[in-house]
Amino acid sequence: MSGFWYGGDYNPEQWPEEVWREDVRLMNRAGVNLASVGIFSWARIEPRDGEFDFAWLDEVLDLLHAGGVRVDLATATASPPPWLALKHPEMLPVTVDGVTLSSGSRQAYCPSSPVYRRYAARLVERIVERYAGHPALALWHVNNEYGCHVSHCYCDESAAAFRAWLEAKYGTIEALNDAWGTAFWSQHYAGFDEILPPRAAPTFKNPTQVLDFDRFSSDELLACFQAEAAIIRARSQVPITTNFMGFFKPVDYWRWAQEVDIVSDDSYPDPADPLAPAYGAMQRDLMRSLGGGAPWLLMEQSPGAVNWRERNAAKLPGQMRAWSYQSVARGADGILFFQWRQAVAGAEKFHAGMLPHGGTDTRVFREAEQLGSELATLSSVDGLLGQPVPAEVAIVFDWDSWWAIEQKASPTAVSYLADVLGWHSALTAAGVTVDFVQATGELSRYRAVVVPSLFVASDAQLEALDAYAAGGGSLVVGYLTGILDPDLHVRTGGYLGALRETLGLWVEEFAPPAAPDLAALGGGEPPAVGVRGERIGGRASASLWSEYVRVESAEVEAVFDGGALDGHPAVTRHARGSGRAWYVATRLDPEPLGVMLDAILADAGVERLPRVPGVEFVRRGAFLVAINHGREAVTLDLPGTDILTGGSAAGLRLDPQGVALVADA
Amino acid sequence: MSGFWYGGDYNPEQWPEEVWREDVRLMNRAGVNLASVGIFSWARIEPRDGEFDFAWLDEVLDLLHAGGVRVDLATATASPPPWLALKHPEMLPVTVDGVTLSSGSRQAYCPSSPVYRRYAARLVERIVERYAGHPALALWHVNNEYGCHVSHCYCDESAAAFRAWLEAKYGTIEALNDAWGTAFWSQHYAGFDEILPPRAAPTFKNPTQVLDFDRFSSDELLACFQAEAAIIRARSQVPITTNFMGFFKPVDYWRWAQEVDIVSDDSYPDPADPLAPAYGAMQRDLMRSLGGGAPWLLMEQSPGAVNWRERNAAKLPGQMRAWSYQSVARGADGILFFQWRQAVAGAEKFHAGMLPHGGTDTRVFREAEQLGSELATLSSVDGLLGQPVPAEVAIVFDWDSWWAIEQKASPTAVSYLADVLGWHSALTAAGVTVDFVQATGELSRYRAVVVPSLFVASDAQLEALDAYAAGGGSLVVGYLTGILDPDLHVRTGGYLGALRETLGLWVEEFAPPAAPDLAALGGGEPPAVGVRGERIGGRASASLWSEYVRVESAEVEAVFDGGALDGHPAVTRHARGSGRAWYVATRLDPEPLGVMLDAILADAGVERLPRVPGVEFVRRGAFLVAINHGREAVTLDLPGTDILTGGSAAGLRLDPQGVALVADA
Amino acid sequence: MSGFWYGGDYNPEQWPEEVWREDVRLMNRAGVNLASVGIFSWARIEPRDGEFDFAWLDEVLDLLHAGGVRVDLATATASPPPWLALKHPEMLPVTVDGVTLSSGSRQAYCPSSPVYRRYAARLVERIVERYAGHPALALWHVNNEYGCHVSHCYCDESAAAFRAWLEAKYGTIEALNDAWGTAFWSQHYAGFDEILPPRAAPTFKNPTQVLDFDRFSSDELLACFQAEAAIIRARSQVPITTNFMGFFKPVDYWRWAQEVDIVSDDSYPDPADPLAPAYGAMQRDLMRSLGGGAPWLLMEQSPGAVNWRERNAAKLPGQMRAWSYQSVARGADGILFFQWRQAVAGAEKFHAGMLPHGGTDTRVFREAEQLGSELATLSSVDGLLGQPVPAEVAIVFDWDSWWAIEQKASPTAVSYLADVLGWHSALTAAGVTVDFVQATGELSRYRAVVVPSLFVASDAQLEALDAYAAGGGSLVVGYLTGILDPDLHVRTGGYLGALRETLGLWVEEFAPPAAPDLAALGGGEPPAVGVRGERIGGRASASLWSEYVRVESAEVEAVFDGGALDGHPAVTRHARGSGRAWYVATRLDPEPLGVMLDAILADAGVERLPRVPGVEFVRRGAFLVAINHGREAVTLDLPGTDILTGGSAAGLRLDPQGVALVADA
Repeated sequence: MSGFWYGGDYNPEQWPEEVWREDVRLMNRAGVNLASVGIFSWARIEPRDGEFDFAWLDEVLDLLHAGGVRVDLATATASPPPWLALKHPEMLPVTVDGVTLSSGSRQAYCPSSPVYRRYAARLVERIVERYAGHPALALWHVNNEYGCHVSHCYCDESAAAFRAWLEAKYGTIEALNDAWGTAFWSQHYAGFDEILPPRAAPTFKNPTQVLDFDRFSSDELLACFQAEAAIIRARSQVPITTNFMGFFKPVDYWRWAQEVDIVSDDSYPDPADPLAPAYGAMQRDLMRSLGGGAPWLLMEQSPGAVNWRERNAAKLPGQMRAWSYQSVARGADGILFFQWRQAVAGAEKFHAGMLPHGGTDTRVFREAEQLGSELATLSSVDGLLGQPVPAEVAIVFDWDSWWAIEQKASPTAVSYLADVLGWHSALTAAGVTVDFVQATGELSRYRAVVVPSLFVASDAQLEALDAYAAGGGSLVVGYLTGILDPDLHVRTGGYLGALRETLGLWVEEFAPPAAPDLAALGGGEPPAVGVRGERIGGRASASLWSEYVRVESAEVEAVFDGGALDGHPAVTRHARGSGRAWYVATRLDPEPLGVMLDAILADAGVERLPRVPGVEFVRRGAFLVAINHGREAVTLDLPGTDILTGGSAAGLRLDPQGVALVADA
Repeated sequence: MSGFWYGGDYNPEQWPEEVWREDVRLMNRAGVNLASVGIFSWARIEPRDGEFDFAWLDEVLDLLHAGGVRVDLATATASPPPWLALKHPEMLPVTVDGVTLSSGSRQAYCPSSPVYRRYAARLVERIVERYAGHPALALWHVNNEYGCHVSHCYCDESAAAFRAWLEAKYGTIEALNDAWGTAFWSQHYAGFDEILPPRAAPTFKNPTQVLDFDRFSSDELLACFQAEAAIIRARSQVPITTNFMGFFKPVDYWRWAQEVDIVSDDSYPDPADPLAPAYGAMQRDLMRSLGGGAPWLLMEQSPGAVNWRERNAAKLPGQMRAWSYQSVARGADGILFFQWRQAVAGAEKFHAGMLPHGGTDTRVFREAEQLGSELATLSSVDGLLGQPVPAEVAIVFDWDSWWAIEQKASPTAVSYLADVLGWHSALTAAGVTVDFVQATGELSRYRAVVVPSLFVASDAQLEALDAYAAGGGSLVVGYLTGILDPDLHVRTGGYLGALRETLGLWVEEFAPPAAPDLAALGGGEPPAVGVRGERIGGRASASLWSEYVRVESAEVEAVFDGGALDGHPAVTRHARGSGRAWYVATRLDPEPLGVMLDAILADAGVERLPRVPGVEFVRRGAFLVAINHGREAVTLDLPGTDILTGGSAAGLRLDPQGVALVADA
Repeated sequence: MSGFWYGGDYNPEQWPEEVWREDVRLMNRAGVNLASVGIFSWARIEPRDGEFDFAWLDEVLDLLHAGGVRVDLATATASPPPWLALKHPEMLPVTVDGVTLSSGSRQAYCPSSPVYRRYAARLVERIVERYAGHPALALWHVNNEYGCHVSHCYCDESAAAFRAWLEAKYGTIEALNDAWGTAFWSQHYAGFDEILPPRAAPTFKNPTQVLDFDRFSSDELLACFQAEAAIIRARSQVPITTNFMGFFKPVDYWRWAQEVDIVSDDSYPDPADPLAPAYGAMQRDLMRSLGGGAPWLLMEQSPGAVNWRERNAAKLPGQMRAWSYQSVARGADGILFFQWRQAVAGAEKFHAGMLPHGGTDTRVFREAEQLGSELATLSSVDGLLGQPVPAEVAIVFDWDSWWAIEQKASPTAVSYLADVLGWHSALTAAGVTVDFVQATGELSRYRAVVVPSLFVASDAQLEALDAYAAGGGSLVVGYLTGILDPDLHVRTGGYLGALRETLGLWVEEFAPPAAPDLAALGGGEPPAVGVRGERIGGRASASLWSEYVRVESAEVEAVFDGGALDGHPAVTRHARGSGRAWYVATRLDPEPLGVMLDAILADAGVERLPRVPGVEFVRRGAFLVAINHGREAVTLDLPGTDILTGGSAAGLRLDPQGVALVADA
């Protein structure tokens, strides 16, 4: 790749042929060099069972090629045509309540359906056969947004596949009975044939069954991907991707990332949400981390408003550009949109396009042109494209824990992602760039590793965390960590399991504070649990969680403040080998969390980026990128030169949505 | 009709015969001259398949006739008896999720069911045969509240009917594919046999499929009506009605109004809702307008509390009378109730009756007597009964737009009816009586025409609106108008389509403000979009909508205030031919809307009725009607005489719920 | 029983054998003398159809016996094993919407299923046969928490059983048609074969059908109990219980209480809910009352947090003990927990156990030990164990009324239980101990009887209430009483039916105030209905209900204040025979309700217990029990000695959660 990719989804089948030529012309004008084609073209390519029509697609690819636009060619399997469902209704997905979902929207297939897989494979074979050698081809785009609308299917085909998956995992039914704890509630299975997906039931389902079904469902989608990728790889050397969706709960992207040649991502923060920049930063750090630090592609973002929220806010002037540079700063080598030309019919006609309903005389198109031009210029600048993003701190992210901690019948209703976002945004605000890692990943590369609620942890994971601290790292462990093993069995003998040694304490009892409505009835105390401590400072609200900690050898840095837990440890620090291990027995609000992080980061010797309220700083390659997400202009005082303006970065004024790429002086 | 109709639903089958005689006696005492009989009598008339029992109904009709009470005789098809569902379960309705709805409440039938239609036709034939010549018969009451509980059925019978409807509409499958935009999301249909109703699906359904299903569903109910009406008309000259339900979304009453001989309406505003009088006024204006200005019947209202809300408020003393006069003032020639005698069993036993559980020594019965007596007196007064209601302003109301704008995946979640009510109540408060019209109706009769969010508009509709302005009218166009054509394809090239010329502007981009919860997170700016302007006055809140307007030749009357749109046009005025065309790019709150309307109405030369806070004024025939909906007594100072009291209207005190009918001096 | 029972659910099948021995040892340490065994053991006892394995259970019972722990042996029928559902899917329960509920949680059976009942009976026969003579056996525990998750099943088997139940009740279809009022909405049934359970329907279902289905559903569960109990009684003299669940709506415990040998209860108030002590007191009074005043067992409570709420609060230090004494004070002779050893797998692993995950070095285990020790001591104290709890006031509680008043299409949405709790907690706060009674129970034992919203009342019930007042009692009747007969037909001629004579008034019309959201729109008046009166005192808010009362011979004690009802009677008193009858036409907030009760109780000559804010007082046998539920310590000044401390009760300091058992001096 000799420059930044720039472009978007392109759906020529929605337009008459004369528009195609105008599209290529305007793509050139906007600097587009990559178009994702064919994503929802199955019904156009194969309008009837076994009848294939490629002539139109030949022409589209030839036109794009002639115009110098490369193609990210889809396998077109994301949305089967209606005729397939009519012929094989058993391939339709079924909800947990037994409702069959019909054709007429998109993605109406059961991922485990042999029929779907057979027809999809045939289609992919035909497409690869025809286009593997096309000169426009730059990337294969397998399916689309796997699991977006149907991630879990409860049909009989899925049940059969689940049983096979379980048999492969457990070998014997007694191994499954032990893992699932079926002695509870008389759930013992005499054979695999008795097992069903966790369909609607009278009350709480078996938690391990539910978790295994989450794992199975992620695996089934991955198997769909693998089957298509294998067909492609047999005939083509062109790299393969499938577009991820950031922190998408149903799919464990750690497993998927190993299977794609390049990580790509779809990202749609709400412009009306003040947390959008923080969430965006976190999502881009995940994408970089999934690829092991390698450059990734922003495969989809919106040039303006989307269409699927209750209220679909427009992007502010400059906001699309600012958020695009956020991706570049955090490791992206391509910026693409959904979609090139805004649709006029169908469910997404109110989703913005680079080329809006209003045509080229629009702010949206002008901004698309501007960004295209800038990226073209930046492609030839040394030290940006393809460069890594250094990070000294990592957050452990774990899909098993996400799935498990948000199950019902847990100690309290927790949003895993809100918790992780709390840590990530506090670190970002503290001037720290963050990688995401697996607990068993290369932790030793980092000065500090934060472990938010690793609710489910294998022995290997706990040992890796301990080894990291003992080896000199700064380990920061959040509440509800190490509670369960991978079968969701409680690690008994005081919570925290093996981390008891690492942290110098154990947890005796969970004690979440009353929910706000009940707390209010109780006269205000404790409306929430507070925390007080010298290094943490003052009284800090901690509304979601508290627990009884039994300190053995840790130092207490802060205690709970008020209520039944008054004076009990809330934050502790423990020397472990040549490192240290912190424990945080609550969820802190942003301000006290920042104060605590200052102590932890200083302790760990983590280097900090500049800190200006509202401004995001990231270092990539030779550049320090600054993005003003605030509502006010700021003046930066940095050494070096902003390559976007060519001016000095000392005294540089950054308007709202303004961006600077500062090369060190 | 020689006088006002007065009476209500009468269900003698719920009572022993001896009560019937008492009923007639008390009806006479209360002034009742019309009873709606047989609405839910199917199971009583035909207790078993093909066994008919009319003896009881013969006797009821004879008793009523003997007592001087005329009959609005129902076709009794609104609620099939259980035996039909047992014999033909395929006639039961099915929800979008595939749940079959059972007998045991009411209206458990699929409107497209051939079985239902066959059995209903047989029943109607027998009833008409027997009673067409009965001297008590004054009106035929076809079915009841069509679509009230089951407006859309998703069963296989409905699917077949939908396919037939589509084939009749589109002719070829490719015409349908074009209209529905099935190139999107791989939805292309190879044949009509692949099409289903928009059943539960993985995500947003095809919008045109959904809209066509709305149209189809309204048409299927209408076909049920037409089939029954045809049977009646073959044997009877007595006029036919079916009771509408005000602004009832599932049924396009413009189409239905052409099929009934007299419009009749069921109306149940909540006495506890301060907006009830405004909503009532709007509903009655619709009824008058549906009939082209002809007198209509208030077929059902409650004499007191209803039974189906969470809390069922009693009517205030005098409120039933005040609201009855609201109907008379706005064109009704009959006031009827659900129901005559309050039931003692079943799901509606707590719904008030004219004759309550407490008997005749009750406020409710006394008020019913009083109103009956007054209407009898008013029947012989010249200039009221049968007279028209003059209106200089009209609001365009459009079911297609209602259906489409409230679909998901729209620019923002809009309540069409709340928007229309905003316009209507502001006009009423401004002293203006309003008709409702279709865009292709006789607009030239009005000095001003308001077009709230005509989201879906045909070329003919847009041309009619333009012609109205060009011909000298004052056209007022609200946001989200003319965006889509009848197939829900966007009119590209800048929003507003052909109205661009009319209004002297186009819309570049939608920019709804953040929802209140997100706005609050954002620090308050913009918590909502404001508007400022000289004629509009001050800063006006506009919380739901804003957009980027590109003015070409319009004058800007007000601009947005604050946020990203600060200074962009919010209200404009454009000279068009011999008229003018206003555009309102937001939803204004009541006060600034009133200020703006003052400007528009003055500009248009619209005459105003008196304006007293809390008091509704309407002119009908020779009378100015005044109704005090407020909580305080007011003193009116009008020329003329109040015919209810016979006193002068100058210095007339009107208590809360008080009514005056003032004849010009 | 020679002492207090103490112990809990014990699920040895979840643990390896070596743990069983530790369990018995630790049970001894904690003072446990009763263990509930086998509740969810069906799949363990009968892992395959007809294959029984009792060896493990033999050993468990022998171990417990050897350790001196008696056994409450379950029939194990609460949760059928998966193989039964696989073999007979027709035994699975079906929801009102037609969704079949699967195995994989618990209680997945249709109570009417002949298959379930046949397999359950076979299992019970085998268990009774084997263990009827076991020396550890102290109690039979039939099934578990009947109806907890599946109380109403809508499957075809249930439909058939419902038809049979109806035929037995009504004899002829016309009797059913009359009772159900099927003349309404054309619901007439030609035969029993046309009748279905009240499955999903287009709108409100027939209310009597719904009520009969509630009665049927309670009866079907009872029939399951009776079938098992009959098998046991044929072979065993050991007493039988099944664990109730307090105020559990689906099951009419008045009918069940006659069938058990001892009443037992599961009780889980939320420690975070300030109303928990009041609710707990009410629940325990019900249990005592169900058994006619005989001692009962607290079969399940949690030693700490539960697992099934959104947030699962820990119990405060001492709170488990305080609440246990609440049960003892209100008549319990046993305190048991769910469960002995906290589970490590399955859906309840986060539900506390007496022996927590943290082991014996935990607050929870220490508190369990302490209580076990105290109860052992108290067992030998005269005047407590087995003693009655005196009560001079009773509240009429009625399941039919509960079911009916919370049906839809009622005058207003009422929570029957909130209303009853309002009365009960106000009486408790007034220093009064309360029994619950049926209206046809032995009312004459009480100085005052409160009747909250006896919405459904038979003639016999109304006559009994009148006779009670006429015979010298103080009858206090709440709004919405006597409105309907047992078929849910309105008692016409002015509401209140036969109580009109008793109360000296009738009710003309219901007039619930506007719901808060609408009231707010209306400018604040009436945001709620108020009440004023001399004895009631000041202005009292009454937000839920108001109505038009027509006084005949009653004295008005308070009137409504504000709004349309201003000055109308709100509270009345009427001399009736040698007694008096009060009527309360609204729901009063706690403070004015207390003021009113002071007047009523003084009038009735009811003796009062001490009254200290936050402290609950109850007299049992020779002891006055005081429990401090407040957040502050209090000092009591009572004559006598606290047997827990042995100190004087004069000047006794009671910390939060503190308990005193004061023997009269």
